[in-house]
Formats: sequence, structure tokens, C-alpha cells
Amino acid sequence: MKSSVVSSKNLIRLQSAISRSFLQHSSKPISQTPFFIPIFPTNTINLYNQRYQNLQIQIRSNSSSIMSSSAFKPEQAGLPPALPLPSPLLTKFKIGICQLAVTPDKERNIQHARKAIEEAAQKGAQLVVLPEIWNSPYSNDSFPVYAEDIDAGHDASPSTAMLSEVSSRLKITVVGGSIPERCGDKLYNTCCVFGTDGNLKAKHRKIHLFDIDIPGKITFMESKTLTAGETPTIVDTDVGRIGVGICYDIRFQELAMIYASRGAHLLCYPGAFNMTTGPLHWELLQRARAVDNQFGEVLATTEHDEDIIIAEIDYSILEQRRANLPLAKQRRGDLYQLVDIRRVGAH
Amino acid sequence: MKSSVVSSKNLIRLQSAISRSFLQHSSKPISQTPFFIPIFPTNTINLYNQRYQNLQIQIRSNSSSIMSSSAFKPEQAGLPPALPLPSPLLTKFKIGICQLAVTPDKERNIQHARKAIEEAAQKGAQLVVLPEIWNSPYSNDSFPVYAEDIDAGHDASPSTAMLSEVSSRLKITVVGGSIPERCGDKLYNTCCVFGTDGNLKAKHRKIHLFDIDIPGKITFMESKTLTAGETPTIVDTDVGRIGVGICYDIRFQELAMIYASRGAHLLCYPGAFNMTTGPLHWELLQRARAVDNQFGEVLATTEHDEDIIIAEIDYSILEQRRANLPLAKQRRGDLYQLVDIRRVGAH
Repeated sequence: MKSSVVSSKNLIRLQSAISRSFLQHSSKPISQTPFFIPIFPTNTINLYNQRYQNLQIQIRSNSSSIMSSSAFKPEQAGLPPALPLPSPLLTKFKIGICQLAVTPDKERNIQHARKAIEEAAQKGAQLVVLPEIWNSPYSNDSFPVYAEDIDAGHDASPSTAMLSEVSSRLKITVVGGSIPERCGDKLYNTCCVFGTDGNLKAKHRKIHLFDIDIPGKITFMESKTLTAGETPTIVDTDVGRIGVGICYDIRFQELAMIYASRGAHLLCYPGAFNMTTGPLHWELLQRARAVDNQFGEVLATTEHDEDIIIAEIDYSILEQRRANLPLAKQRRGDLYQLVDIRRVGAH
Repeated sequence: MKSSVVSSKNLIRLQSAISRSFLQHSSKPISQTPFFIPIFPTNTINLYNQRYQNLQIQIRSNSSSIMSSSAFKPEQAGLPPALPLPSPLLTKFKIGICQLAVTPDKERNIQHARKAIEEAAQKGAQLVVLPEIWNSPYSNDSFPVYAEDIDAGHDASPSTAMLSEVSSRLKITVVGGSIPERCGDKLYNTCCVFGTDGNLKAKHRKIHLFDIDIPGKITFMESKTLTAGETPTIVDTDVGRIGVGICYDIRFQELAMIYASRGAHLLCYPGAFNMTTGPLHWELLQRARAVDNQFGEVLATTEHDEDIIIAEIDYSILEQRRANLPLAKQRRGDLYQLVDIRRVGAH
């Protein structure tokens, strides 16, 4: 398993370096193509600011007051109003993205993922991210068989036990892709986030299930076996505030907008697409979420094989870019408003 | 002035064909680079559906009921709830996009635009779109000089008089890019939409002004001379319901979401970017708005010279794709809600 920071060669890629990591299984085009798409701020400027960097310019810090907030009510563009970006414990760190092959052998998948995480940590990653459904084939037949009762603890969930052990031992944060979760009589597609102490800090259950039913052709309805999660998931970690989505969750722009308004430093979207249209979508959607919500560019990319890529995150640049181009202060809260229902309900 | 439908040659472009039309003036990198970006549904499938088309499949029409609307309240993801797509008078027509050089000679600019519109109509276009600020150099010094009192009528506004005359004579709809508008003691960056009868159907005043102030380097503050528009603009025409934005308006995803919820068939964003970062932005932002709101792909593109491109719009495909992948019914109105303030206020 090689490990590298990959820079794509063509012009667009050089300018907007894409982070992605995916893996294709050829036999089952939809059910077995795990990959994942973290969106993260980078040490390159965000797309919109590039023109100004090229001019070697700095925008005055008071540019944020150019528009009158009293006239356009930018602070009302979100309800509740957007939270300021919190001060992260670390402003600069390495992220490791593990692209994994999945087999029907669950124990092998777990050991394989453990080794990948260890390798990423060895390369300096303080945050390691796994793909969607990395311990199980991606099929409704498999989900019930491979599902684990995460809440019941380690014996009932060898996959998350491994994540806990390795994150604690290596003192890293792990966004554990996702596994099928059993909770009572329900199954979820669940991402577990472990802190540097090995404790489970958050569980995100996929909110938007992907259902497709084409008679005589192909049927895949996640909702046949899975239940949709009930809430967005944002979690404070040693490497910043992370908003989590799984695969189809990225298709809905509102989720990323909510995470941005909750002060996220970073969005992670473990995913599993096929190779037919996947490349168009994971690139376009992650770039769209990143540029629209000012999470910066997406930096590193893999090819189609198993891989581990390492990239450096620098939140100070994220803050600088948002200060330089204060979209949040230019929004028209007098014309539109995105309501974060759960956060409104909590007030 | 050549006229053609341009297909880009590289793989990504072939798959996601981009519509853009722009023009660079080399001497003033920001102030004189009018181009425009219409987003329109096309006769190719939208990005998300490509995987299924490749499989030659149809999604059952009742797939929209896969998710329980009672549980997730998708109808509440917008407030007021999203309007259904209206039945357009025409479901299939040609659009003409005119990429124009702008000179300090206003009369020449007007005659030049007239000829371009005539040529587009001659090639079969029933909807013709012009770029942002096509009658004036793009500068704060020029705006007051070139501004016209659109409301005062034809004598006070030779630019819109031309648009009215040509749309009536050729029986076409014209989204007239934008010109500096004088209204009382205020100036706006205004897009006029003319119907096939030559009547002014809508005026859109740029909502999000682009201000940049870099001491000692470059200063461009639209708000120095211009006033921001007060409302989103959507207009029913013979070629469908059109949502209008100007340039920086595209940077704010909420506007496109509002237009989609108001039942727009098509979004038009006349724009003026520079060539340093423009290419990254007009492509990314228009693709993002199109795929996120299911307006289809963006189809045709020009190179960097003056040009007229013609492409065919087919709304039946737009409807089909939305029926096939009913994102609107999969949204989680129990978790997020976009409020269209003006439309709420009107109720």
C-alpha cells in the first residue's frame, strides 16, 4: 500500500486540487464501490480568492463592513445566526485519507483498516479518515450480517473497538468512515468519530438514504434495510470542529450550509459511488460545498487503487480567506434565510 | 462574428458540457471583462442521472414516494413550499448566447448588440441572452456616464429601446444582459427581460454587489456608485419561467435555491469576471447551481473571442430528470428549511 500526496497534472486540477479517494469493485457497479470524499480547507487559497492572490494583494480587514448589515441583514441569512469559527486546539496538522479495498471477510477488513490507519499516523496524520462501509460489502444482503451494535460496546462491535484502540494508542482523531449499525430492530449507515483518548465522540447516521428502483434493470434501496439518521452531526475534536455527512448526504447543499453556520472547520463525507458517474459527482459536489461555504479548496487526490494520502490542513488560511472575502457579511438575510431546525429547537 | 455550438474536447467537458461565454479585455483585468453565464437545462441528462442513463434504465414514477414525506417533511424544506414546475408555452426551443466586445462608444455597442441578437435569431434562437454591462466599459467612472433611465422610456434609454425593438420585430425573448440604470439619484446594475411583444417583462437589479478594496493595489467597489437591488427576479416568458441573477449573484447559492423553489425552468446569470480566476469560477459555480437545483447540465461553450452560440433547450427532459431523481421529495424539511423572505412576505 503506497502512501503519497498526489497532485493531479492537468491545469484545472493544479488550480483546484481535488481531494478524493475511492475504490472500484467491477462486479457490482453500485453496491461495492466504496470511496470517500473529505472536504477540507487547505494551504492553497480558495477558488474565489485566486484572482487576488495572483495580483499579490491583500483585502483590508475592514472590507467586511463594506455592506451595511442593517440594510441587508446578513446576520439573518441563517437562523439561528451563524456561529463564529471557534479557535481550534490545532491550527495546522496533517490529515490522512485511507482508500481501502473491501472483501467479504470482515475480520480481514478490520485488520486491513487498522494497518492503513497506522500507516497514515506513521506518516504524521493527526486526523485519519476511512471510507463508507469499509467493513462490509455494500449490499442490503450484507448490511444485517455485518452490522454491529455500537452502543453495546466493544465485544458487540469489533470494528469500532479497533477504531477506539488505534485512535487511543496512536493519539489521533479518527473519522471512521461508516459501518452498518444495529440499534434495536433498526439498521443505520453510521460514521463513528473517535478522539485521541479512544472515546467515541460522535455517531453520524446517514441522513439522506439513496433509493433507486428500476424494474427489470437494477434495484437498490438503502431504505429497504437501513433507517435514515435523525440529525446532522457536528463534533469538536483536537483537530477542529468537524461536520460529518455520508455519501448521498453531500447531494443536499443545505447540510453543508448548516455545518458552516455551526462553525465547522472541516467537512468529511465518507462515500461510496460507482465509477460511471462518480468521478463527475464527487469532484463537482465536493468542490461546490467547499467553495460555496468557504472551506477552501480540496487539495489531494488518489488514483483508483488502494492508497493513503496525506495533506496538510492550515486553519489560519481558512480564517484569513473568510476575513478577506466575507461572504457571510454579504449575504442577503432580508431576502433568504436558512433555518437549522435542530439548532432552533435547541434554543 | 462566427456562430456555432461549441463542444469542448476533453473528457470532463464532453461529459458535463459547459455553457459559458465571455470576453477579455487585456488592459483592465477587472473592469472590462464582460461575459455571461446562463445556466440552462439541456438535452443531455443531468450529472447525477448519468449513471442510470448509462445503464439504460428508467426509475419508476412512484419512486418519489419511497421516502415518507410525513416523517421527513420534505415539503417543508422550503418556506413557502416549493412551487411545482409550471407548464411552459414552449417545451423545446433554441437559446442564443451572444458574447460581445465592449467599447467606449455606446452607440457602437448598441448597434453591435443588435446585430448579434439578429444573428442569433436568424440561427433559430427564440431566447437570446446578452452579457453584463454590454453598453458601457465596466468601471465606476463609466457607470454614471453610460447609465440610462429605463423607466423614463425609450428616448431616455436607447439601449433598452433597441432591445424592445428587436425582440418585438423578431418575436423573440431577450434577457438583455445588464446596463447601468439611473433611477432618481441611484444607479443600479440592471438586467431587462423583454418579451416577444417587445414589452419589458422584468428588471433585475444586481442583488449582491462586488466590493474589493486593496490599498495601493487595486480598488473596485461597485457600491461606490451602484445600489444593490431589493429583490430576486423571476419572470414568466414564452420560453419558460426564468430566474435572473447578475455576476456575483451566482456566488450565493440561496438565490438559485429560491428560484428553483419558485418553479424556474431556467436560470440566467449575465456576468463579468476577469481571466485570472474567472474560468474556475464560472464553470464551478454554474455547474454547482445547475446540479444542486436540478437545472440539468450546462451545454455549450465559447472560446475567448466574440461569438454567438446556439443550443437547444428541452424542458421535457428537465421534468423527466426531476421525476426520476426526486431530490425535492428527499430533502429533510425536518432538519433544514430555506425561507424565501419575499415570497413569505407576499402571503
